[in-house]
Amino acid sequence: MTTIGILGAGQLGRMMALAGYPLGLSFRFLDPAAGSPAGQLAPQNTANYTDEAVLEQFARQVDLVTYEFENVPVQAARFLADRVPVFPPPQALEAAQDRIKEKSLFRSLGIATPAFAPIDSPTDFQPALRLTGLPAVLKTRRLGYDGKGQRLVHSAAELGTAAEELGRRDLILEEFVAFERELSILAVRGRALESGLSPQVAFYPLVENHHREGVLRLTLAPAPHLHPGQQEKAESLARAVLERLDYCGVLAIELFERRGELLANEMAPRVHNSGHWTIEGAPTSQFANHLRAGLGWPLGLTSAQGFAAMINLIGSAPPASDILDIPEAHLHLYAKAPRPGRKIGHINLVAPGEAELRQAIGRLRQRLDIPELARYNQTTRMEI
Amino acid sequence: MTTIGILGAGQLGRMMALAGYPLGLSFRFLDPAAGSPAGQLAPQNTANYTDEAVLEQFARQVDLVTYEFENVPVQAARFLADRVPVFPPPQALEAAQDRIKEKSLFRSLGIATPAFAPIDSPTDFQPALRLTGLPAVLKTRRLGYDGKGQRLVHSAAELGTAAEELGRRDLILEEFVAFERELSILAVRGRALESGLSPQVAFYPLVENHHREGVLRLTLAPAPHLHPGQQEKAESLARAVLERLDYCGVLAIELFERRGELLANEMAPRVHNSGHWTIEGAPTSQFANHLRAGLGWPLGLTSAQGFAAMINLIGSAPPASDILDIPEAHLHLYAKAPRPGRKIGHINLVAPGEAELRQAIGRLRQRLDIPELARYNQTTRMEI
Repeated sequence: MTTIGILGAGQLGRMMALAGYPLGLSFRFLDPAAGSPAGQLAPQNTANYTDEAVLEQFARQVDLVTYEFENVPVQAARFLADRVPVFPPPQALEAAQDRIKEKSLFRSLGIATPAFAPIDSPTDFQPALRLTGLPAVLKTRRLGYDGKGQRLVHSAAELGTAAEELGRRDLILEEFVAFERELSILAVRGRALESGLSPQVAFYPLVENHHREGVLRLTLAPAPHLHPGQQEKAESLARAVLERLDYCGVLAIELFERRGELLANEMAPRVHNSGHWTIEGAPTSQFANHLRAGLGWPLGLTSAQGFAAMINLIGSAPPASDILDIPEAHLHLYAKAPRPGRKIGHINLVAPGEAELRQAIGRLRQRLDIPELARYNQTTRMEI
Repeated sequence: MTTIGILGAGQLGRMMALAGYPLGLSFRFLDPAAGSPAGQLAPQNTANYTDEAVLEQFARQVDLVTYEFENVPVQAARFLADRVPVFPPPQALEAAQDRIKEKSLFRSLGIATPAFAPIDSPTDFQPALRLTGLPAVLKTRRLGYDGKGQRLVHSAAELGTAAEELGRRDLILEEFVAFERELSILAVRGRALESGLSPQVAFYPLVENHHREGVLRLTLAPAPHLHPGQQEKAESLARAVLERLDYCGVLAIELFERRGELLANEMAPRVHNSGHWTIEGAPTSQFANHLRAGLGWPLGLTSAQGFAAMINLIGSAPPASDILDIPEAHLHLYAKAPRPGRKIGHINLVAPGEAELRQAIGRLRQRLDIPELARYNQTTRMEI
């Protein structure tokens, strides 16, 4: 039996194991935190990612390694890759961990991004501001997630203060994009089975994401009201990234839509929160396809089955029966203790048509106080 | 977190855990055999079902008990039911374990069955044969499964020999039904949440089953070419059984179709092999609905999503990639070592239309030598 080693034992690893057991796979996790969501389902080595003796042992215990979050130390991924196949490739991890490298990669492939410039000292302020204009967003180059390590600045003075707060160097100043909406595309690339043959590539439909306080709240899949050619545009830019990185597995790219144009904001070299709808909303989930890619197996269908909405449960969850009496609802809990701001689960609503989806969203609104849901059931308000 | 205790740690328990983890549940199994399919996913107490000290401990470790096979000793279920809620109720287990009780239950509810009579000594032969005619099937009253403990007899002399072979007593002689086909219906009944209110009841569509050597090979869902009113007829007889037993959970009833009439053959008070198609073929799987019923949660939708075929992998399985390059295929392996006659996994083919399903069956036939598949892709043979 093939054993997949996963760095990180959070909900993404948990859902990967749930998708992989039916395929006859075994799992083992490596995570510094005990009592993790995935630890309920499979053995876990509880240790730091930088402990080489632990990595050595882990490499012997598994046949193939992947990771479920992008801040795994690149060094750990490379150490493992010398011993056992690792996917996605460590160079993808490296590119995604540094916002400058990431945006430079996009630019080098002709992919539009918001304007940006590195900030390592106050002498960088003026040239950077000339590129980005104001307002602008100052971010740490590394280790930011869910809106952490970011400041919106409206003046050079505010930029100075923000730079002090964020550590003065290894920062990036980005154009503040007054986007119409945020989209994301999930791409999957398999393995070349014979030399000379290109690996199989597949794309899920573009989805529309709604963040609040830097945290994803709602994904609509497929994204409504796409312009003609927008899906193809997104697939083409994602394909360029996959090929440049000789990628294997699921890659998520977050995009801003501004006047019909797509700007690449960031990428995640892993399964992604905006792909959770695929569990019931697509014939093959992102979790199953990530594993199939890594194993060199044929990829599964990535089309949308009807219309889906993914709603994150943040901080707390209502009783399961309040969710499950909505026929379109599928509940996914992560075995995490409730805590403010913590993603403890999600709900997938899947319906055959848009009108039915809106109606299901309307029913869910009566049970969950999530402002993002408000605008999606206006046409059916009278029916509720 | 609610912990479900499951008696039996085979593939049915395994798939129940896979369906229940997303609902935020924990699992613990009790099974005499170590290295079981479900033991890979959850803690297991490895002991006999009759060990009261073990049962006592198990009852303290879990919140709710169910079982995944119907030959759990009724005494063990009752012992547990005195300590912790058990579903389905032990009286259902008792009725299903004895072919005479089972068929008498059906008859008492006005449900047609093949003719039958108990055999406990040679003096029973003649009166039994008068009821059943010849040929007839002699079976053990208890512990038969997958065609074991059965003999087809063509004469009184053969009946005598067969009775010797099967232990002389506690036998049942049944009419040999020259049926057109075998169908089954899966019913689910929840819990009464307020006294005076009836529990919620739901039915999956009737499915068509193909057995060989007493073992299920292929299920088609929904059953093709049903007569008008047949689904309603099956639901009505299943409802009568559910109510008589004050049932909770999934109940499977196997039926013979003879000249449009439905004869109840046997029932299984648990999730059932002929319901495996529901994992991808229905909005809510039989495994999720069984748990939802036991927890008193609302039941999920039981309609078919398109057309499905479930193919058992018996004895061995082809490489995963040979299956997964069929876009309609979903692979389910049970982590069991290959062994002749052993169910080690199944494949669900799910397609939006019947023609696409037939085509997928045609592709699968090229990879798997399963004679039952032959008749289902004749109309598309030219396309293959």
